[in-house]
Amino acid sequence: MKAYRTVRGMRDFLPKDAETMRQVEKFSREVGQLYGYEEIITPVVESHNLLAAKAGEEIRERMYTFKDLGGRKVALRPEFTASVARLVATKLRNKPKPLRLFSVGSLYRYDEPQYGRFREFWQANYELFGSTRPEADAEILMLTKDLLLNLGLRNCRFKIGHMGILRGILSQENLDERQQNRIMQLLDKKRWEEALNVARSAGASPRCLKILKKVFETKGKDAFQVLGRAEDDVQDYEEAVAAVENLREILELAREGGVKLEVIIEPGFARGLEYYTGMVFEPYVPEIETALGGGGRYDKLIELFGGQPIPAVGVAQGVDRIVLAMKTQGVAPKIVKEKVVVIPVGEEYVAKAMKLSSMLRSAKLPVEVEVMGRAVSKTLSDADRRAVAYAVVVGPEELKEEKVVLRDMKKRKQRVVEIKNLCEAILGSLR
Amino acid sequence: MKAYRTVRGMRDFLPKDAETMRQVEKFSREVGQLYGYEEIITPVVESHNLLAAKAGEEIRERMYTFKDLGGRKVALRPEFTASVARLVATKLRNKPKPLRLFSVGSLYRYDEPQYGRFREFWQANYELFGSTRPEADAEILMLTKDLLLNLGLRNCRFKIGHMGILRGILSQENLDERQQNRIMQLLDKKRWEEALNVARSAGASPRCLKILKKVFETKGKDAFQVLGRAEDDVQDYEEAVAAVENLREILELAREGGVKLEVIIEPGFARGLEYYTGMVFEPYVPEIETALGGGGRYDKLIELFGGQPIPAVGVAQGVDRIVLAMKTQGVAPKIVKEKVVVIPVGEEYVAKAMKLSSMLRSAKLPVEVEVMGRAVSKTLSDADRRAVAYAVVVGPEELKEEKVVLRDMKKRKQRVVEIKNLCEAILGSLR
Repeated sequence: MKAYRTVRGMRDFLPKDAETMRQVEKFSREVGQLYGYEEIITPVVESHNLLAAKAGEEIRERMYTFKDLGGRKVALRPEFTASVARLVATKLRNKPKPLRLFSVGSLYRYDEPQYGRFREFWQANYELFGSTRPEADAEILMLTKDLLLNLGLRNCRFKIGHMGILRGILSQENLDERQQNRIMQLLDKKRWEEALNVARSAGASPRCLKILKKVFETKGKDAFQVLGRAEDDVQDYEEAVAAVENLREILELAREGGVKLEVIIEPGFARGLEYYTGMVFEPYVPEIETALGGGGRYDKLIELFGGQPIPAVGVAQGVDRIVLAMKTQGVAPKIVKEKVVVIPVGEEYVAKAMKLSSMLRSAKLPVEVEVMGRAVSKTLSDADRRAVAYAVVVGPEELKEEKVVLRDMKKRKQRVVEIKNLCEAILGSLR
Repeated sequence: MKAYRTVRGMRDFLPKDAETMRQVEKFSREVGQLYGYEEIITPVVESHNLLAAKAGEEIRERMYTFKDLGGRKVALRPEFTASVARLVATKLRNKPKPLRLFSVGSLYRYDEPQYGRFREFWQANYELFGSTRPEADAEILMLTKDLLLNLGLRNCRFKIGHMGILRGILSQENLDERQQNRIMQLLDKKRWEEALNVARSAGASPRCLKILKKVFETKGKDAFQVLGRAEDDVQDYEEAVAAVENLREILELAREGGVKLEVIIEPGFARGLEYYTGMVFEPYVPEIETALGGGGRYDKLIELFGGQPIPAVGVAQGVDRIVLAMKTQGVAPKIVKEKVVVIPVGEEYVAKAMKLSSMLRSAKLPVEVEVMGRAVSKTLSDADRRAVAYAVVVGPEELKEEKVVLRDMKKRKQRVVEIKNLCEAILGSLR
């Protein structure tokens, strides 16, 4: 019989990796709760119409689309945003603002599998609805910083831009939205020359082209200095100046909120998705080229899904990208509690072993009972190999006096302990 | 614009329900870890071949099956078992036994939506590989009991049977596997008469039919008494007697392990899936007709997926069924920590508010910063409505002395607190 395999682009997480994944998920929930975000769970299967409505063309073409048995055209969600927007435009329509929501789960895109990229991947997605103010943007940066630092990642940095800078220039030059989107898409792929050509053929002035070129090339680690330069460059474009100002306010607030990470400002940085309207950013670690997540402000999104206009700012953290970063940096998840194995010396002590295991678990100790009927020595050497911390041996001699043998596997020492003191004996040594 | 909706059979979990779901998931992981099970994560999308290999016909017909962009016939997993078996037969092939694994995640079946049944649903799935012994079966019962009781559910009960009782009789009467499976399927739907007819036409003796009828009807709350009766009934069928014996041993061990639930023994109880070979069971609460989960022993499963023969016993807990049971019984998940809202009295105090929020979150306090630029009184009444516990008001008077106003929202009292004592002031009142 041929061995079964995972489908191309899909993968299994064996226990060690699964544990890290779940640890990151747990931290994602905790940081969400620390910032007052509430979790919502939306389905993996959504209508194709909904998911296609605002996804960029690139994502749209790579969705897992199919007809269900009822003939409905459905797809597996390629991102959370459409589903969250659906809820905010319908069931959560009347919720008072600000509305802080988060989601954690799996997403599906038919991308070419490569290092760190799979067709099933996980995100933790946070969105703050109802505020246009810079403190909302700053909060999203702070939350992202806290998640990455809490997980133990080192040398995290943010790449930050603002869609208003380029869009402000292009709007004042009378380029329509379609032309602007085309330019943003090319910028996202770092195809500067082509972007300039599109602007030129769309009628942008020579002076504008010179400024655009400057903006594309502006980039630097001293955030406020870069913003100063950018402000000078774009001084003739009112909206662009306002965008630089907005970004400065956001960064000042984020700095107060503890964002002391290296920030690389790229005024010409455009994230692929067309719905961004303000600040955009991506977190990185130096060891990995791809971003660990991405976010920004998208004030027109909810309208696009049929709701009232509601400003929004948010971030999607790439859970498995973060796991990859943790592995690359050698950052380990917290150690699970040390295990206890309970070994009956023979068939007639199995029932007593079950009873003791139940008692130990009530004290929140992770317990394995020997279920293979093996000799004590064999189970002990197996437990040793798996770094089990304690063994409890249940045998006739000690049981007569309501006692068992407690073995410290690391110290290779054992002693006879009264059953009524067993939990305390183990917990005491663990402390 | 038409409002977007969820696809038929799919659903959203709004914050309160999502919280209960995640609570049940969390408890599922904790109980797995307490029993020494390790988590694995397998993909939602698997090859159709794998998923169809051992699913009963009924499940096979209701899978979400489609071709991916590469023309592969794939499906959304309708259960965990095939994926786990794939791993145990391949990547985990050489792991020493016993091997204890669990998975928590979403599954997909195109069933008719009804009360408590959706097309996307969640399970926590536990499997113990490598032991044929009754303590392994007892462990699965204990784990199930612990999960349900830890969540606070009341009046849980188990319905328990053993496939060996009926299969033992039918094998000795020379019915082949196909005929036996047909009978089991009918029994699962409580179509006793038809099951008897199939047995009759397959050549079962009149004496056997009489015994079968008796077994179908045997049922009762006094587990060991029912087993005694069943043993008398099937005494001429050696394998059936061994099965009753096995079930008795399992239940005796489970009782020692703290399973004090009401156990309803149904020797004629057959779970729909054809791969069960030994004990089978389903947990219930009185308020809900459908089972909260289901499990049993399936010693031939891994062979069917191309692996070496490995005995196995396991259980799938219906996470959203359990949530439904909790709602029905009015069992609430643990309360989340009480929230703090930080309110700047004006634009110029926003930066300070960001800084304070960061400090409070470092002390693991859930904090919302006012991001709407509203007046203090308005934010306070909004916080009151949402049962926020504390408000920190950041204004000029107090800030001069590095102080803020701390308001206890429930007691409707406020006092001025030094910033350096703020965390302690809040945590102190929470204790």
